Amino acid sequence: MPVNLVAPDSASLHPVAGVKLGIASAGIKKPGRKDITLIELAPGSKVAGVFTQNRFCAAPVTVCKQNLASGDIRALLINTGNANAGTGDEGIIRAQQTCKAVAELFGIDAGQVLPFSTGVILEPLPIDKILLALPAAKADLASNNWSDAAHAIMTTDIVAKAASAQVQISGKNITVTGMAKGSGMIHPNMATMLGYVTTDAAVSQKLLNRLVKEVADVSFNCVTVDGDTSTNDSFILIATGQAENTEITDATSSDYDALKAALSEVSIKLAQAMARDGEGATKFMTVQIEKGRDRAECKQIAYAIARSPLVKTAFFASDPNLGRILAAIGYAGVMDLDVNNIQVYLGDVLVAEKGGRAASYTEAQGAAVMKEPEITIRAVLNRGDVDATVWTCDFSYDYVKINAEYRT
Amino acid sequence: MPVNLVAPDSASLHPVAGVKLGIASAGIKKPGRKDITLIELAPGSKVAGVFTQNRFCAAPVTVCKQNLASGDIRALLINTGNANAGTGDEGIIRAQQTCKAVAELFGIDAGQVLPFSTGVILEPLPIDKILLALPAAKADLASNNWSDAAHAIMTTDIVAKAASAQVQISGKNITVTGMAKGSGMIHPNMATMLGYVTTDAAVSQKLLNRLVKEVADVSFNCVTVDGDTSTNDSFILIATGQAENTEITDATSSDYDALKAALSEVSIKLAQAMARDGEGATKFMTVQIEKGRDRAECKQIAYAIARSPLVKTAFFASDPNLGRILAAIGYAGVMDLDVNNIQVYLGDVLVAEKGGRAASYTEAQGAAVMKEPEITIRAVLNRGDVDATVWTCDFSYDYVKINAEYRT
Repeated sequence: MPVNLVAPDSASLHPVAGVKLGIASAGIKKPGRKDITLIELAPGSKVAGVFTQNRFCAAPVTVCKQNLASGDIRALLINTGNANAGTGDEGIIRAQQTCKAVAELFGIDAGQVLPFSTGVILEPLPIDKILLALPAAKADLASNNWSDAAHAIMTTDIVAKAASAQVQISGKNITVTGMAKGSGMIHPNMATMLGYVTTDAAVSQKLLNRLVKEVADVSFNCVTVDGDTSTNDSFILIATGQAENTEITDATSSDYDALKAALSEVSIKLAQAMARDGEGATKFMTVQIEKGRDRAECKQIAYAIARSPLVKTAFFASDPNLGRILAAIGYAGVMDLDVNNIQVYLGDVLVAEKGGRAASYTEAQGAAVMKEPEITIRAVLNRGDVDATVWTCDFSYDYVKINAEYRT
Repeated sequence: MPVNLVAPDSASLHPVAGVKLGIASAGIKKPGRKDITLIELAPGSKVAGVFTQNRFCAAPVTVCKQNLASGDIRALLINTGNANAGTGDEGIIRAQQTCKAVAELFGIDAGQVLPFSTGVILEPLPIDKILLALPAAKADLASNNWSDAAHAIMTTDIVAKAASAQVQISGKNITVTGMAKGSGMIHPNMATMLGYVTTDAAVSQKLLNRLVKEVADVSFNCVTVDGDTSTNDSFILIATGQAENTEITDATSSDYDALKAALSEVSIKLAQAMARDGEGATKFMTVQIEKGRDRAECKQIAYAIARSPLVKTAFFASDPNLGRILAAIGYAGVMDLDVNNIQVYLGDVLVAEKGGRAASYTEAQGAAVMKEPEITIRAVLNRGDVDATVWTCDFSYDYVKINAEYRT
């Protein structure tokens, strides 16, 4: 069951001027299931994206990258039920066909459409079903459809993920609203993490390209469920400019900081929601590495802990088996790490120092922390001043069940 | 259940001249359980070892490395039930105390004893119990105790692991006999992989040091269960020289090749036995990467597949979800990999090529292979002439069960 996660109240998701969403049912995997989401952007909207590093990247990812490069994006099409990945040249052709069909509906060029797919890999995209459903998706377009859209892009997600924030920038009220599905940018579950965060702020394309990387680094790139990196992962940042603030063009300005903070707030909520809704999750874990030399080594150690099946099954069992955390720190690959100089905390409890169990530690303290549904593991490296945080969930019977039975 | 694995018939395990094994019960974790194994080596025996790369290496590993450096090892002591890891300075003192006690029994120096521990981490080694059991272990010393010893070093292993081979070297009959516990050198399960392979061959210390690395590289370093690297992993090669062959001193000689082949044969059997007996295993998987540029990239891709929870749960479900294999190849970290040039086989069935599913592939073919208890996954990279093989097992409900309940 998802850990402290409920679907957002539709009223809490503020519309973003210049963004309309339409949902329809194409029957890709299950008849009647809403599985198509169309997003229409006002003219002049700016779009930036980051994508999976997987060498087997899916056809829609390839097409997205091409179309983003030429700019002036006006529409996004997202389907669930089929990832159009591992589909070779034919997959590219089908992704382009969906763009062409959307372009015809709106009277724009196919290159102004970004396609996204999530679901089963290696199956041909059922293009006919998608094309048939497009007019209904267009007819459904509305600015207050965020909740329905967040539901329509789900695959094995149990809870829909969407969030909203508002901030004042140079006297204008700026809205940020986004949605996501799946479980993590670097290490998603199942097939795919998709994230879409939109704002009505005016910001230059150059800074939007920078923001998408900076925001991903503190949000979607900090979550893991099982360490498997998808073929389709995409995170898209959209700025429509309709708030009529003075366009943000300076990365050292307070306006930039304010926008980045609001985008990060929404993106972190969405990223955490993925771990809270990780397949089979019963616990939400925050792994925080402190006082490292650089962010890379902190993330490396955080991920070693967060990915360890032994750590994750111990948390599922509420067993303070601290040795597994120490072992994961030890094999993270930071070869000059002095383990005698590290403190490890479970919640607020000091559990290990000087290469072994802390003298003050009692099993009862550990067991008390382990009963909580949300647990922070902290390791203080004492060799620098950099921190990094990764979110994950535990590893339960249901993870195996969900993934063993996924295609049945 | 272990996959096609039964405990070796005691009669098939040939004694090695110069090696005696004694077993006793110290009651470390469970009363009455045989948990102490003592190995006595004839004077003049040569010993070499490779150990865990984990920065949190256990106290006995540290002591082993020190004592091996000074040479002339005459005894080994192995306990199960407690890993003496994450135990700080006190752990080192206790490991040294066990060496001292063994040394007194045999009238040798403490530095001539190698200590090994496996079991739960972060708990103090119950030194008193071990010292009390040592005389019984000494009294039990015999050259035909391999089967009992293989049982005594088990932790979560279901089946005892031992193997034997014989080979003619320069007219002499050479015996190789070994035993192991756990699940893999680089990526063991639970706490520890321990491997001991002995021979009566005469071989120089220099070449023994070389053999231990070469043999580990094709055996224990090719197995993974869950990707977690232990604090205690050790692989020890022992040559007593009692076979009275001309000492092997030339790494380019046919004698060297013959000895290496026999040592590798036994070590590969033991390593494969670990994956066959991987926690919760229902399937034994061989991941073979062919025509790579170098062994490192082949192993990297093989491990990405063999470690993927998504691949492993699909094999547990006998589901030919090939997309997960492609995704794992894609995220292995070989960044210039041309996925359009790779062929992937499941058993003898070509399942993917040109970046997608093979035109000739049918789901029925994949399902037929998936029903087998032993499955080979092959990926042909077509960019060089180097191969690598990794053995692993699937990921079942029982893996979660075993590791969630390990300390209860």
